[in-house]
Amino acid sequence: MLSGEVDRIIQLFSKLPGLGPRSARRVALHLLKKKDQALTPLIEALIQAKESIQTCKVCHNLDTSSPCTICTNPSRIPNHLCIVEDVSDCWAIERSHVFKGHYHVLGGLLSAIDGIGPKQLTIESLLERIESQSIQEVVFALRATVDGQTTLHYITDLLEPFNVKVSSLARGIPVGSDLDYLDDSTLALAFEGRRFVPSH
Amino acid sequence: MLSGEVDRIIQLFSKLPGLGPRSARRVALHLLKKKDQALTPLIEALIQAKESIQTCKVCHNLDTSSPCTICTNPSRIPNHLCIVEDVSDCWAIERSHVFKGHYHVLGGLLSAIDGIGPKQLTIESLLERIESQSIQEVVFALRATVDGQTTLHYITDLLEPFNVKVSSLARGIPVGSDLDYLDDSTLALAFEGRRFVPSH
Repeated sequence: MLSGEVDRIIQLFSKLPGLGPRSARRVALHLLKKKDQALTPLIEALIQAKESIQTCKVCHNLDTSSPCTICTNPSRIPNHLCIVEDVSDCWAIERSHVFKGHYHVLGGLLSAIDGIGPKQLTIESLLERIESQSIQEVVFALRATVDGQTTLHYITDLLEPFNVKVSSLARGIPVGSDLDYLDDSTLALAFEGRRFVPSH
Repeated sequence: MLSGEVDRIIQLFSKLPGLGPRSARRVALHLLKKKDQALTPLIEALIQAKESIQTCKVCHNLDTSSPCTICTNPSRIPNHLCIVEDVSDCWAIERSHVFKGHYHVLGGLLSAIDGIGPKQLTIESLLERIESQSIQEVVFALRATVDGQTTLHYITDLLEPFNVKVSSLARGIPVGSDLDYLDDSTLALAFEGRRFVPSH
């Protein structure tokens, strides 16, 4: 008995990550009940984002300009590159303020199961950057999965001719987490990477 | 380091029911990465819904027309009225196909704590309908809370002069639920409303 227009936005919302039919219904209803306070501003912001946001042709991040604000920021360390799977990883690292170099978004991970090979990722443009920007240090910030490790090793092999320092983020116990809830492999990696505490 | 446009849609999404900053970020990123498949259709559907959806002046449901398709449907029982708190309740009952009469959306419940009095609800238009449409039966489908009960009793008192049959949805054990997880008051109501099983 729902009108086609309502059904359509419920359907579109339910396809968004983290939303199901039930939550999509709640969202749609909320927007329709508050047209002026919620629906109109959302439409305007989406249109503006659609028109202004583009993929940076250098690092493949999303921004209003290409090259993006990170790529063109002169106060960032020019020869350090952090390799991430996705734009969201880049945003997460930016939020933590720990990295002051540049990024390279791969756009995925090598995956035999999903049929993702090197051509689908931005590996070629990465190698060009390494050469043209004379990158000296590369930090891999990839997922701790088989696909993440495969991608790391594949790219590391390609980097061999360039004489760059390659590192990968530490694996270990996340801050605030209970040992009891950790999986065995994280625990094993945490033991492997243990640091000796200097005595006073 | 996020551009203002991205920040703005994350902020708007995180205000929607059921979404927080984290899920809003995922949704925004998904839309920006899939402009043609996800963002553009969503914008178009939202604009269309914004222009076409309105509140029915009879029952206060949301629809593309006013009076809405339920109010104007000649195959629905004309003298039966189901009183609900919100449009979502009306949609939920419609999905279950159990009720063939008309609806009246109150737009909330009487609540001393939230300062919601009879004037904020559509009670006046309800009384007009009862009279002009010579309603014979009213079913309250309100929440089983203090506010729901208060609203039920308040409206029932107002209905006294009209000679209508008034009922309220049964309280009891939801289908498929474990007795162990039910609260005491639901159990008590389920006992109170128990039905005797005829012997063969």
